[in-house]
Amino acid sequence: MGVTSVAERLAALVRTIPDFPRPGIQFRDITTLLLDPEGFQLAVDALADSVSGPVDLVAAIEARGFAFGGPLALRLGAGMLLIRKDGKLPGETIAEDYALEYGTDRLAMHVDACAPGKRVLIVDDLLATGGTALAAARLVERAGGTVVGARFIVDLIDLGGSDALRAAGVDSVSLLTYEGG
Amino acid sequence: MGVTSVAERLAALVRTIPDFPRPGIQFRDITTLLLDPEGFQLAVDALADSVSGPVDLVAAIEARGFAFGGPLALRLGAGMLLIRKDGKLPGETIAEDYALEYGTDRLAMHVDACAPGKRVLIVDDLLATGGTALAAARLVERAGGTVVGARFIVDLIDLGGSDALRAAGVDSVSLLTYEGG
Repeated sequence: MGVTSVAERLAALVRTIPDFPRPGIQFRDITTLLLDPEGFQLAVDALADSVSGPVDLVAAIEARGFAFGGPLALRLGAGMLLIRKDGKLPGETIAEDYALEYGTDRLAMHVDACAPGKRVLIVDDLLATGGTALAAARLVERAGGTVVGARFIVDLIDLGGSDALRAAGVDSVSLLTYEGG
Repeated sequence: MGVTSVAERLAALVRTIPDFPRPGIQFRDITTLLLDPEGFQLAVDALADSVSGPVDLVAAIEARGFAFGGPLALRLGAGMLLIRKDGKLPGETIAEDYALEYGTDRLAMHVDACAPGKRVLIVDDLLATGGTALAAARLVERAGGTVVGARFIVDLIDLGGSDALRAAGVDSVSLLTYEGG
C-alpha cells in the first residue's frame, strides 16, 4: 500500500456537486468533510500546522468559515472573530464591499472586535477570486489589526485568489487545489 | 476572593445590545465570548462535559451555531452536520418550516448527511422558543437519526424553549439563562 497524503485523504472527503448554484459551476462541497470526524480533525490540524507565528484572533468568514474557524482558533489558543454579512451583527460595525460576478456584496465586523496590534488569521472554506478574504483583511486593518495570513480548505486556482492575496501582501495557504473554477 | 463559577465567567463575556434587531429586544451577544480564547474554550468544555453518552454527529444550526458546533464536535470525536437556511446547501436536501413571530422560515439539511441510527446532538448559540431546534430535530429524525439532546450557550427562559424541547422528548442544557426574553 502506498502512503496516502493529507491532501489525498481530504480530497476524498470533498464532493463535487455539478451545476450549483448555477449551471456550469462545479461546487466543491466541504460538508461531507465536516461529517467525518477524522477528516475534520485532520483538516484543522493541517491548517494549524501551516501557521508559524503567534495568532491572537482567527477571523472566520460567514458561514462555512465559522465551521473551521472555531476549532482552528482553539487549536491556536486564539479568539474567534466573526466576519458576517452586513446587518447580522448586533453591535456597531464597520463594513467593506466586495465584487460579485454581477454587483457587490458587503461584509461587516464589530468595530471593537479587533484591538490595535492584534495578529489576525483569516479563515474560510473556499478561495475563489479572493474578494471576500480581501474585504475581511481591509476590515481587520481598518481596526488596527495585522493580518498574518489567510487559510482555506479549497483553492479554485484558476480564479486567481491566491495571486490577488499575494499582491495585497497576504500570505495564503489552501489544503486542496482544484482547476477549472 | 470568592470562587467564580463557570457560568459567572461566561456571563461576564456575553454582552447585551439593547434594541437589536428591534426596539425592546435585549440581544444577548456571544461574539464577545468567542473573542476571548479562555472563555471560548471554557464554553466548549462545559458543553462537552454536559454530554454523557456517545455522540456521532453534532448538528449545528446556521450561523452562530457553527462557531460552537465545530469545536464541540471535535471535542466529542463526532462529525459536524450543518443545518442551514433553505437554499444554501448544494446537494439534495430535506426541509422543515418553523414559526417566526410573523410568518415562517425554513431550515434544510442534506438528505444523506445523517445515516439511520446516528446519535445526533443539536447545538446553537441561543434557545428562545425552541422553534429552530425542534425543526432541526425533525430533520434528523426524518433521516433516521436519533436526537440525543440539544445544547445552547444562552437560554431566554421566559420564551419557553426548554419546556418545548422537553415536551418533544429532547433533553436540553444551556450554560447561561436570562429572564425577560
